[in-house]
Amino acid sequence: MALIVQKYGGTSVGSIERIKVVAERIHRTRDEGNSVVVVLSAMSGETNRLAGLAAELSENPEGREYDVIVSSGEQISIGLLSLALRERGCEAMSFLGHQVPILTDTSYSSARIEFIDTGKITRELDDGTVVVVAGFQGVDTLGNITTLGRGGSDTTAVALAAALNADLCEIYTDVEGVYTTDPNICSNARKLERVSYDEMLEMASLGAKVLQTRSVEFSKKYDIPVMVRSSFTDTVGTLVCKEDSEMEKVVVSGITYNKGEAKISVLQVQDSPGIAARLFKPLTEAGINVDMIVQNIGHDGTTDMTFTVNRPDYSKAFKLIEEMKDDLGAKGVEGDTGIAKVSIVGAGMKSHAGIASKTFEVLAEEGINIQMISTSEIKISCVVDEKYTELAVRVLHDAFELGSDEVVEE
Amino acid sequence: MALIVQKYGGTSVGSIERIKVVAERIHRTRDEGNSVVVVLSAMSGETNRLAGLAAELSENPEGREYDVIVSSGEQISIGLLSLALRERGCEAMSFLGHQVPILTDTSYSSARIEFIDTGKITRELDDGTVVVVAGFQGVDTLGNITTLGRGGSDTTAVALAAALNADLCEIYTDVEGVYTTDPNICSNARKLERVSYDEMLEMASLGAKVLQTRSVEFSKKYDIPVMVRSSFTDTVGTLVCKEDSEMEKVVVSGITYNKGEAKISVLQVQDSPGIAARLFKPLTEAGINVDMIVQNIGHDGTTDMTFTVNRPDYSKAFKLIEEMKDDLGAKGVEGDTGIAKVSIVGAGMKSHAGIASKTFEVLAEEGINIQMISTSEIKISCVVDEKYTELAVRVLHDAFELGSDEVVEE
Repeated sequence: MALIVQKYGGTSVGSIERIKVVAERIHRTRDEGNSVVVVLSAMSGETNRLAGLAAELSENPEGREYDVIVSSGEQISIGLLSLALRERGCEAMSFLGHQVPILTDTSYSSARIEFIDTGKITRELDDGTVVVVAGFQGVDTLGNITTLGRGGSDTTAVALAAALNADLCEIYTDVEGVYTTDPNICSNARKLERVSYDEMLEMASLGAKVLQTRSVEFSKKYDIPVMVRSSFTDTVGTLVCKEDSEMEKVVVSGITYNKGEAKISVLQVQDSPGIAARLFKPLTEAGINVDMIVQNIGHDGTTDMTFTVNRPDYSKAFKLIEEMKDDLGAKGVEGDTGIAKVSIVGAGMKSHAGIASKTFEVLAEEGINIQMISTSEIKISCVVDEKYTELAVRVLHDAFELGSDEVVEE
Repeated sequence: MALIVQKYGGTSVGSIERIKVVAERIHRTRDEGNSVVVVLSAMSGETNRLAGLAAELSENPEGREYDVIVSSGEQISIGLLSLALRERGCEAMSFLGHQVPILTDTSYSSARIEFIDTGKITRELDDGTVVVVAGFQGVDTLGNITTLGRGGSDTTAVALAAALNADLCEIYTDVEGVYTTDPNICSNARKLERVSYDEMLEMASLGAKVLQTRSVEFSKKYDIPVMVRSSFTDTVGTLVCKEDSEMEKVVVSGITYNKGEAKISVLQVQDSPGIAARLFKPLTEAGINVDMIVQNIGHDGTTDMTFTVNRPDYSKAFKLIEEMKDDLGAKGVEGDTGIAKVSIVGAGMKSHAGIASKTFEVLAEEGINIQMISTSEIKISCVVDEKYTELAVRVLHDAFELGSDEVVEE
């Protein structure tokens, strides 16, 4: 008998019919002798509807009241699923964030889980009851409702799995797992059987939208194996787990891309100590995340500094840098929103040389100019002109022989 | 400076535009120097939508999970209104039932308020913050979400007003107050300036849908004056308050009707002690409320017993009585769903004779047969054929000179 946490996303519970299908799967899992904790997102479209209502009232609605509003979506789905389970004769009980409780800090709309009290859940599981927990939401120590930010239900699921010391955490979504790349770009993209936490972390943060980055950090930290799979089929999905020697043999696991960033270059800035700190401090203070940073070797006592930010932050970031230009002694500021980041991810890179040079060669052969390069132990990211995104993904996917013989069906 | 509880119904907060209008009124009330507690219903249509989703999953969805689902409607409206108030520069904070907390018993879907802890609310009011409380919902001592039944937000408002010792409770709705009768039937129906708690109690339970009966019981018990008024105009509404000598001069305050009942007659039942108890016990056990009961003087050792139940309970009640027929020694059971109850309500009836006979005369003149009669100190109810409902209301409204000279505009 195992303790399994199953998380179902919005499309998996997007209608009454879907909720019945999900209830059947959960009932079956329990009847196979498992203890089951279910974490749900809101029905698809619901969170957007609620956020839309709030946006009609305020330009910056996020905060305490926003969290009260949007957390109601999960409240509805857990109640409906619990009803559906009971109707099938499967004992079930819903828990809101404050009922568990899932304690968080007070950063409304992007709260972090600090502690989960598993007492009530464990008592219900001991009685054979399926426990249905609202994802995405928590409560602070004063009893205020908080939410974890978009995709937060993944984090709820993994955090619960960690707190309960679960045997497995299954993330049910509308795709069958993690692919070597986006099947919409490469029709022969292959579903991966397993990826390591670190690989998944790179893939999640690089733009593969299967799992929220924070949930992968959690699963890595507490070593909770996560199975990403579809609630629409019975096909086995992708297991995100600890790296082992088998995995290291696979040099490249996948190719990801991200069209969500923009690039800013500060030209011929004074090449003196502390210049980078002065450049990025105002951005940090404005809450703007900087992703890639490239600084070229200087000449004539100056250097060019280029970095990327999320596209919604571009105008604000550009304005801030413009205002600093003279202070920094820079000759100019240039920006470009028409870029894409294409990345190669693989745990085996650590022990295999030549991946970087092969990547550059493949792109060069297609005449794709690389604007920025950034590497980690297990990934190589290249910024290219946005129009080359699909071409770059395709030639790299082929060059590293990631495709399967079968073509993914639409 | 007064402490005012304002409750807004579903149509009053039915859209973002309406929420802005309501926010303006609340802001104004606070800026006039008052402490303001707001109680909200769900946006109109929302509770029905949620109940509909639950009904798709279960024939009898009411219970713990149902309450989790339907209570989310108020969660959305209090969050939105608080946002709207803050956006206007009026400090506001929302409170869910469990955050106040409003403690209830554990009768899911029809819970009763047992205790309201006003500590948190009072602290916020002291800071000049408008407190926005979710109506209709509470929490039991184990932390389970409960709801108070349809129209429960009225009860939340009056209970809060009692707990806070408020100066006034205003119930904002889509009509301008309590009328002498339904303006859809009598175009000259007149808005009442004041009615006593007892009159309102009779009117509410007799079918005038302005206030939930339980909320009037609360306001009577704790002597909380309730002003029923429209959120769509600035017109002063109807004050429901303690009876005074002025009120007793008004013999008849209003005419109400109720088409929601059905009649069952048990014919020639043994006229022996305990027969009524034996007849009604199974109905009580089945949770069926019996309203009017009439027993005629017996002859030949038998009597006819007639009673009314809510129409949705009719089939079940009829079947139960049929099954008992032989045990009771009854000759037969008859039923009729085509009835209506028309009632005359007035605090002055206590001290004025002749109201009953005038009522019977007026109906007789129109050839309307009275099937059952039931009286209390301040009301007379007559059951008539449903098709005569509007006619009966109209002739009684005229006979007791309740109409105004002005015609109510549609």
